[in-house]
Amino acid sequence: MDIKLNVQGVLTDPKTETQVVLLRAEDGQEVLPIWVGAIEGGAIKFALEGILPARPMTHDLLKSMIDHLGFRVQKVIITEIKNNTYYALIYLESGGSLLSIDSRPSDAIALALRTHVPIYTTDEVLKQKAGDSLDTWLERLNPKDFGDKNV
Amino acid sequence: MDIKLNVQGVLTDPKTETQVVLLRAEDGQEVLPIWVGAIEGGAIKFALEGILPARPMTHDLLKSMIDHLGFRVQKVIITEIKNNTYYALIYLESGGSLLSIDSRPSDAIALALRTHVPIYTTDEVLKQKAGDSLDTWLERLNPKDFGDKNV
Repeated sequence: MDIKLNVQGVLTDPKTETQVVLLRAEDGQEVLPIWVGAIEGGAIKFALEGILPARPMTHDLLKSMIDHLGFRVQKVIITEIKNNTYYALIYLESGGSLLSIDSRPSDAIALALRTHVPIYTTDEVLKQKAGDSLDTWLERLNPKDFGDKNV
Repeated sequence: MDIKLNVQGVLTDPKTETQVVLLRAEDGQEVLPIWVGAIEGGAIKFALEGILPARPMTHDLLKSMIDHLGFRVQKVIITEIKNNTYYALIYLESGGSLLSIDSRPSDAIALALRTHVPIYTTDEVLKQKAGDSLDTWLERLNPKDFGDKNV
């Protein structure tokens, strides 16, 4: 069954520039952490904070291209974890036809936030999530690492 | 008149992490330097070196999406410089129709290299190029900052 996720925020580890996006199940307390690169984390933060850059960033270009080509993003799904790598699909529709495109979750989330479509995952992914690693990682952070929109 | 450009390489300033993409006019000696972010520079380097990452990076996703939606990249043009900001257009075609999409040059170049389409600019842009700034910047670099594929 697909579980709807809300983006809670993006945390930064200032020592390593690693970022983690926290997604929380809409109907529960489970949190799915996804480690992303600094730029992808930034692209997600920009969307969360409603920042519109003067020039289109790469994910704004992605959205603009989908619009121009007559398609609409319908939803994104974080589909599986294999060897600690997360996989996602972006669903696009146009005139009744639906297609899905392989993506990293970071790109899928950055696009979902810009197009205001839901983000889903599955029970299996939530069960596999690396909760312990997140706890260890969170313990290393200071409160100041948590931005405005973060949990 | 449109002038065809070849990507000569990407230089990195290790102090600031700024990168500059060097484009050389195919029929001349003129070089157009374009300053880009570290990630966009990386996306261009990956394409120059033919590196295929295990998971699609953002520009690979952009290419994949265009393919899936039945379009083809035809060319990209670096169209103008305003207030030290460079502008580009990505031209897409499908079944005889052609459309252009506003883009930063870095995204346009990263996409052009992945889709093997030509990169153009205009006489005006080449004339306006910040040649002096490039020389100053180059003087600060050491030979080791120049990678394999760089000039």
